[in-house]
Amino acid sequence: MGGDHAPTEIVSGAARAVREMDVEVIITGLRPDLTAELKKHGFHDSTIRLVDAIEVVKDGENAIIAAMRKPNSSMAIATKLVKDGKADAVVSAGSTGAFMVNAYQHLGCLPGIERPIVGGAFLKLAPNTFMLDMGANVGCQASDLLKFAVAGSVFVRKFHGIENPTVGLLNVGAEEGKGTEVVKEAYCLLKESGLNFIGNVEGMDIPGGKANVIVCDGFVGNILLKYSEGMAKGINHFLSEELAVMLPQPAVESVTSKLMKQISTPDTTGGGPIWGINGVAIVCHGASRADHIAAAISEAKLAVESDFVGTLRVELEKALKGTPG
Amino acid sequence: MGGDHAPTEIVSGAARAVREMDVEVIITGLRPDLTAELKKHGFHDSTIRLVDAIEVVKDGENAIIAAMRKPNSSMAIATKLVKDGKADAVVSAGSTGAFMVNAYQHLGCLPGIERPIVGGAFLKLAPNTFMLDMGANVGCQASDLLKFAVAGSVFVRKFHGIENPTVGLLNVGAEEGKGTEVVKEAYCLLKESGLNFIGNVEGMDIPGGKANVIVCDGFVGNILLKYSEGMAKGINHFLSEELAVMLPQPAVESVTSKLMKQISTPDTTGGGPIWGINGVAIVCHGASRADHIAAAISEAKLAVESDFVGTLRVELEKALKGTPG
Repeated sequence: MGGDHAPTEIVSGAARAVREMDVEVIITGLRPDLTAELKKHGFHDSTIRLVDAIEVVKDGENAIIAAMRKPNSSMAIATKLVKDGKADAVVSAGSTGAFMVNAYQHLGCLPGIERPIVGGAFLKLAPNTFMLDMGANVGCQASDLLKFAVAGSVFVRKFHGIENPTVGLLNVGAEEGKGTEVVKEAYCLLKESGLNFIGNVEGMDIPGGKANVIVCDGFVGNILLKYSEGMAKGINHFLSEELAVMLPQPAVESVTSKLMKQISTPDTTGGGPIWGINGVAIVCHGASRADHIAAAISEAKLAVESDFVGTLRVELEKALKGTPG
Repeated sequence: MGGDHAPTEIVSGAARAVREMDVEVIITGLRPDLTAELKKHGFHDSTIRLVDAIEVVKDGENAIIAAMRKPNSSMAIATKLVKDGKADAVVSAGSTGAFMVNAYQHLGCLPGIERPIVGGAFLKLAPNTFMLDMGANVGCQASDLLKFAVAGSVFVRKFHGIENPTVGLLNVGAEEGKGTEVVKEAYCLLKESGLNFIGNVEGMDIPGGKANVIVCDGFVGNILLKYSEGMAKGINHFLSEELAVMLPQPAVESVTSKLMKQISTPDTTGGGPIWGINGVAIVCHGASRADHIAAAISEAKLAVESDFVGTLRVELEKALKGTPG
C-alpha cells in the first residue's frame, strides 16, 4: 500500500515478478483493493497470496510514530512475515523512514550496526558505482561512514563480482583535510580500514564513476538522489521540446527515454537493500512503477539466494574489530 | 592567475568586459604571462592595467596557509586593491577557499557575519532560484543558515526585482521535523525570521525552482554544484553519441549546447558574490572560461553600482536583531 502509485503499480510489479521469475509473492494490504488490482492481471489470490493489513503509513507521517501506532500497516505485516519465517524477504515502496523503523523493530540489526543503511547503484551513467547512505542515516558519525564502506564493499564484491572494490569518501575537495569534522575523522578510519580506500571523491566523481563504493551521510545522499530525479524531469521536458522540431516523435521518445535511463537509478536494482538489517529488506523509491517493483523483487531474490546477510555479518565483524564505534 | 584556464581565459574575459561594458579592469599576476595574453587581444597594458603579483595559489593548497604564506598571490594583491580604494570590486577564479580567506582577511565581514558566504543562481532550468552556501561554509550552525536566507533574500530582491522572495530550507523531506539537528533548529529560526519562508524543500525542488532562495550547508551545496557539472558532462557525451546517427553534426551541437546551458550555472552570473564580506568579491568556478569571467565582471559592476554591500549591511542588522547567533 506504500508509494505514490500504490497499490496499482505495486501489484502490477508483483504480477510481473511472478510471471517472469521463479519467485513466490505475498502482498499485504487492503484486500478489496488488492483483489481488484490482481484481477486486472488475471491473478486470483490463490496465485499471489494476500495477507490483510488494515492500516497504511502515509507519506509525511513521522516514521517512528507511524511504526509504533500502526502495527497493522502493510509494511509492518510484510516485515513480520519475514520475522516469522513465512517470507524470505520484504520489499516496500512506502515511507523509507517508517520501513526502516519497521525492519529495525521486527528484524533487528547485525552485530556492530546501530542503524540500518540504505544504498545502491545511483546512475546508469556510472553502473559500477554504489552510493550509501541514501537517506536512512541522517546526521552520521565517522564510524557510520566506515560501516557504509564495509557494507558497500561486501555488496559490490558479492553481487557485482568486483574483487577489490574501490571506496571513495564524498567530500568538497579531493585533498585530505577537507570537509566537516565528521568527514575528516572518517577519512582517517577509512585509511586504516583495510578497504581499498582511494580517498575523497567530489560531486562530479559520482557520474564519473570514480569509485565502486561512495559513502556519505544520508542527508547528502538523499538530497542528491532527489536532485537527480528533478534534473531528469527538467531535462526530459526541455529536450523533448527542442527535439520535437527536428525529429519524428518516436525518435524523440527513443532518445529521451534512453537518456532518462542513463541519469536514473539503474532499473536493474529497482531499489536498495536496507543494509545492516538481520534480514532482507528492500526499499524502493516512492515513485516506483511496476518495472521498479519487479526489479526490486528480483534483487530480494538474489540477496536471499546468495546469503548476502550472513556474509555481511561476518565481514562487518571482521572489519570493525578494533575500530572505534 | 587562478582557475583551470588561467591566465588565457581570464585575460580573454577581461578583454571582452572592457570592450563590451563601461568598466575599467586591472589584472594582477605574472606580468610577462599577462602581457603576452593581452597582446592576443590587441591590448597593451595602458588599456588594461597590470599589477604585479609574483605568487600563485594552487588548487589543493590549504586555503588558510596559502592566504597566510602568499601575501603576493594574484588574488591577495587584487583584494588589497579593493581595501586600498584602488578598485571597487575583485573577481577571482582561483581556489574558493583561499579567496574567501583573502577577502575575509583584507576586507573583513559585515556586522553579524562571522564567515563569508558563497551563493548564486544554480541552474538555468530554474533561473529564479538562488542557492547558498555553495562551499565556503562547511559545518554550519542553524544561525548560519538564517544568515544565508537573509543575504539571499536581499540579493534576489535587489538584483532580480522579486519583491518578496520565497525562502526554502534544503532537507530530506518536506515536513517540519525532518533532517539533522542543525536543520531542525534552522527551521524554527526561519519560521520566526519575518522572511517569506515556505518550509523545507527537497532535492527535486532545486531544478523545480520551488523557492527563490534555497539555503543549505556549503558541504551539500558544493557537492550538488560539482555533481551537476559531472552530470552535464556525462549527459553531453551520451547525448552527442545518440544524436549523431540521427541528426547532422551542427544540429547535434546546437541541441547539446542548449541543454548544457539549461543544466549549468546561468551564464549571466558567471560566479557568485562572497556574501557577508565588507566589499564586493566575486568568486568564479575554477573551470571558468572567458564568457564566465566577463559575466562575473558584469556582476561585480552591478553590485558596486547598486550599493549591494551597504544594503545588505542594513538588512542583516535589521533581521538578526534579537535572534541567537
